[in-house]
Amino acid sequence: MPRAEATGAPRRRANWQARRDAIVDTSAGVFARQGYHATGIAELCTANGLGKGALYHYIGSKEELLAAIHDRVMDEVETGAERVAEAGGSPSEQLRRLGDALLDVIHRYPEHVWVFLHEFPALTGERAERFRKRRRAYERHVEAVLREGVEAGEFRAIDPWLASRAWLGMHNYTYLWFDPEGRLSARAVSGSFADIFLRGMAQGAE
Amino acid sequence: MPRAEATGAPRRRANWQARRDAIVDTSAGVFARQGYHATGIAELCTANGLGKGALYHYIGSKEELLAAIHDRVMDEVETGAERVAEAGGSPSEQLRRLGDALLDVIHRYPEHVWVFLHEFPALTGERAERFRKRRRAYERHVEAVLREGVEAGEFRAIDPWLASRAWLGMHNYTYLWFDPEGRLSARAVSGSFADIFLRGMAQGAE
Repeated sequence: MPRAEATGAPRRRANWQARRDAIVDTSAGVFARQGYHATGIAELCTANGLGKGALYHYIGSKEELLAAIHDRVMDEVETGAERVAEAGGSPSEQLRRLGDALLDVIHRYPEHVWVFLHEFPALTGERAERFRKRRRAYERHVEAVLREGVEAGEFRAIDPWLASRAWLGMHNYTYLWFDPEGRLSARAVSGSFADIFLRGMAQGAE
Repeated sequence: MPRAEATGAPRRRANWQARRDAIVDTSAGVFARQGYHATGIAELCTANGLGKGALYHYIGSKEELLAAIHDRVMDEVETGAERVAEAGGSPSEQLRRLGDALLDVIHRYPEHVWVFLHEFPALTGERAERFRKRRRAYERHVEAVLREGVEAGEFRAIDPWLASRAWLGMHNYTYLWFDPEGRLSARAVSGSFADIFLRGMAQGAE
């Protein structure tokens, strides 16, 4: 029955992927609470309700799981940045929307982002390199928007690389204190940050 | 010979403290390079040229060593903040000097600061609480300067707590990229950051 085989295999593949995604999400919470190195495979098995063999079937290795958490965050961050770029607008408008999009990811994936910004030194070899490249590409995008604003005379002549570091620090660092259930929404935070940063960069009467 | 005893004991105490300080500094480098949890006592022994018994004589435990690295950073940060407070001046001037002082600590102690901002979740119990209190006191000091500026009409009416988070993020996050040997001095970084942030907060004609 080749037809049934063809239907069965993709379905099994989709089920495998869905189960893997769920394991990635659950494990992000475990790593965020107790740290990557301090977490053993046994604890990941308990958290995911799986035996050791089944867990490895889905994740391959503990480091591959860590890489999958990183990919989840970068997928979201890149999607947000692409949407902002497609919408166009002035450098100020783009930077404001990039901040909204970044805080939105931190709001929706607080545990993944904690692991992403805290445990990246635990990635090794090719995985570390892949992550560094994706992260650098995003940082360069932010820098390019700032450079465009400086060149257009919309922003003051502040080193775009250094300004991008200030912007990234303001936004990324929210992972340490932003409370998705707290009094401030992600949009309120990014709105105030844009307010401070864009006015700080703006060309115009002192 | 009670007199000789009295001279000998403080000297031994001073020697012990100097040796301990050196171990704290060396170990900060080891933790910064390979992470706290991934570092074993054997590696700390090798790095410090000491046997296990001698190492424990100076540090007590691996976690006590981590706490000592945290204390070193907080001592420096607090000393800087006290100097700025004593010098007085407007909230803008104080914030600028606080930024200079903070970047100066990150410049002089890059490895300690990496461990401080990266491995604090590894502290437990009373040590974690002590560190949280010291860190919170510093953050409140930054917030108080911002609040004073808002109340004096020098800064715009932006939530001082949220503005302090933006300021802390900009500055603390430099530990991830600031290169003490790089093209930008600590003072150049803090100067540009103050330039962006203070203008962003300043009351006045838009």
